[in-house]
Amino acid sequence: MKIAVLAGDGIGPEITGQAERILLALRSDGLKLELEPGLLGGCAVDAAGEPFPEITRRLVKEADAVLLGAVGGPKYDGLPREKRPEQGLLAIRKELNLFANLRPAILYPELASVSTLKPEIVSDLDILIVRELTGDIYFGQPRGIERREGQRVGFNTMIYTEGEISRIAHVAFQAARKRKGRLCSVDKMNVLECTQLWRDVVTETAKEYPDVKLSHMLVDNAAMQLVRDPKQFDVIVTGNMFGDILSDEASMLTGSIGMLPSASLDDQNKGLYEPIHGSAPDIAGKDMANPLATILSIAMMLRYSFAQEEIALRIEHAVRKVLAQGFRTSDIYEPGMKKVGTREIGDAVLANL
Amino acid sequence: MKIAVLAGDGIGPEITGQAERILLALRSDGLKLELEPGLLGGCAVDAAGEPFPEITRRLVKEADAVLLGAVGGPKYDGLPREKRPEQGLLAIRKELNLFANLRPAILYPELASVSTLKPEIVSDLDILIVRELTGDIYFGQPRGIERREGQRVGFNTMIYTEGEISRIAHVAFQAARKRKGRLCSVDKMNVLECTQLWRDVVTETAKEYPDVKLSHMLVDNAAMQLVRDPKQFDVIVTGNMFGDILSDEASMLTGSIGMLPSASLDDQNKGLYEPIHGSAPDIAGKDMANPLATILSIAMMLRYSFAQEEIALRIEHAVRKVLAQGFRTSDIYEPGMKKVGTREIGDAVLANL
Ligand SMILES: CC(C)[C@H](C(=O)O)[C@@H](O)C(=O)O
Ligand SMILES: CC(C)[C@H](C(=O)O)[C@@H](O)C(=O)O
Repeated sequence: MKIAVLAGDGIGPEITGQAERILLALRSDGLKLELEPGLLGGCAVDAAGEPFPEITRRLVKEADAVLLGAVGGPKYDGLPREKRPEQGLLAIRKELNLFANLRPAILYPELASVSTLKPEIVSDLDILIVRELTGDIYFGQPRGIERREGQRVGFNTMIYTEGEISRIAHVAFQAARKRKGRLCSVDKMNVLECTQLWRDVVTETAKEYPDVKLSHMLVDNAAMQLVRDPKQFDVIVTGNMFGDILSDEASMLTGSIGMLPSASLDDQNKGLYEPIHGSAPDIAGKDMANPLATILSIAMMLRYSFAQEEIALRIEHAVRKVLAQGFRTSDIYEPGMKKVGTREIGDAVLANL
Repeated sequence: MKIAVLAGDGIGPEITGQAERILLALRSDGLKLELEPGLLGGCAVDAAGEPFPEITRRLVKEADAVLLGAVGGPKYDGLPREKRPEQGLLAIRKELNLFANLRPAILYPELASVSTLKPEIVSDLDILIVRELTGDIYFGQPRGIERREGQRVGFNTMIYTEGEISRIAHVAFQAARKRKGRLCSVDKMNVLECTQLWRDVVTETAKEYPDVKLSHMLVDNAAMQLVRDPKQFDVIVTGNMFGDILSDEASMLTGSIGMLPSASLDDQNKGLYEPIHGSAPDIAGKDMANPLATILSIAMMLRYSFAQEEIALRIEHAVRKVLAQGFRTSDIYEPGMKKVGTREIGDAVLANL
């Protein structure tokens, strides 16, 4: 099992560092794996002049899975669009055909009170957002800024083919089948033809999953319902743009985005795994970052790319124990708990493993 | 002052009915106004075969302001796209050039506990969302569903001209100036060129408002920050699509969307005023709907279209008093309060006026 490790920018190296310790411990335990470092994002711009250099492209093409820290930072804000760190992220998704982004929003009971929502609204929250990741307005052509009749005009194209929609719908139905059997598809069919097709194709795909209960919701209502009663949802499937917005909203309901991993998969279970939080340049290098989302991303990697469900569960249990023991990085700290740094909470996970 | 009243569908006639009582009371008090009823949405389809009939078009063109209840209902779900009630809404916005949608998200202290968020997060919440309403992917061409290379493809066009952006930016800066002087512009400039232009033009417009503090936020982060710490915002300005999503999310933070009015204005202060909630067909005709958002929409009408700030404040105070007196419709009911119906809470507002 060859794993490319792209630490990225900001706190990236610190959090992937702790995840690598876990992987190496599993290796001495007998798991066969190889780690190969590579550059993506701002650090790649610094070193090679572009956010997704050819050498990284080759590395991730050959790897069986990719672990990513986080990319970006104010240092790179002034760069032209095509050199910005996030372009590296968009390029790697497209290059590896990672069309299925799985983003769980889980509230750990130990962290219930860090949410800004009332405990009864979010306790035991467990939503899975399935976001399409290689289509939609993110990649649609034509796009650009042009001068027309004397003024600037900016434009982008939202576009989905029937094949792109049914492909992600299958992933979502299968995920729902393994969970509570409920799938909510989110669109804006009352205004956008593109998402009318989305609704039609998801509805057609549903025929193959009579055991899954499908519902549809408009995106504005979904943004409301996530606040009103998030526990009504099991699995949500939506396009790239709406998924970007709703998955961030859903993760913030937990109050602890330092705890949330994500997976981006192709159709062969090759995947890129990363925490959903950003590169947090303000705390980079200070041993303050929370590495648990990255460690939980490894659990997802073992589950989805390497079919090692048992080890995935072991990692997840170790993280739960660390929380139960009261260890907290500052982002999830509450009075009465043990405030620790990045390395020390990594130690605690290792000890529990 | 000629006011077109489009009651619409579902609870529409009941809630506009209460608002009309207020208007008529103000008339006997000396305010010069005329009310003219008209059809929009599903009831217009039933009566005239289309959601925005020519006779309604003429009525609203001649009126100085429009009061709208709500449109839509399951009865109309099977209609072809161009006949659906919400097409009437989109058409009237475009026809009257109502490009500036003002949506306050206010939490009344009396209703603090109906929010799903913790009281300290939302108490005294007072955000104004300024949403562009006649451009963006809502109206962009080309759009449609086509067959290409043997499969269906759905597409829409997100598009903004520099003129459209600066026009709404001015409205937002001016609103911020009258409030706490802070404006947050929301875009997705790291992915969409269209919103890169949005950010550029808003930044250029800011030069004319040195007294307003402008910030920028990506839409995914904005969806998060509204949950994490909504009180950080004063005025938010954004495009039609992002505004649709974020304004609904923001209003649900208050927990009482039955209380929230909205205004959609052209560049001459002609406007359409409506509650932000829907037509609630399940409770239609049962004297259960909350008419306060519609009554507060009249206050906005008097403020923006008729420059009657004093009367607007009188209406708003009357509504506040009704809450303080403990009157509640069932959507905002809590134990210990007086549960009343649509008409009775309308009586209470009238009595306080
Ligand atoms: C950085 C950005 C391009 C990216 C996206 O919009 O997809 C991020 O917000 C995400 O959700 O992974
Ligand atoms: C009904 C629909 C077309 C409309 C919109 O998307 O603008 C509604 O959601 C709104 O926000 O007024």
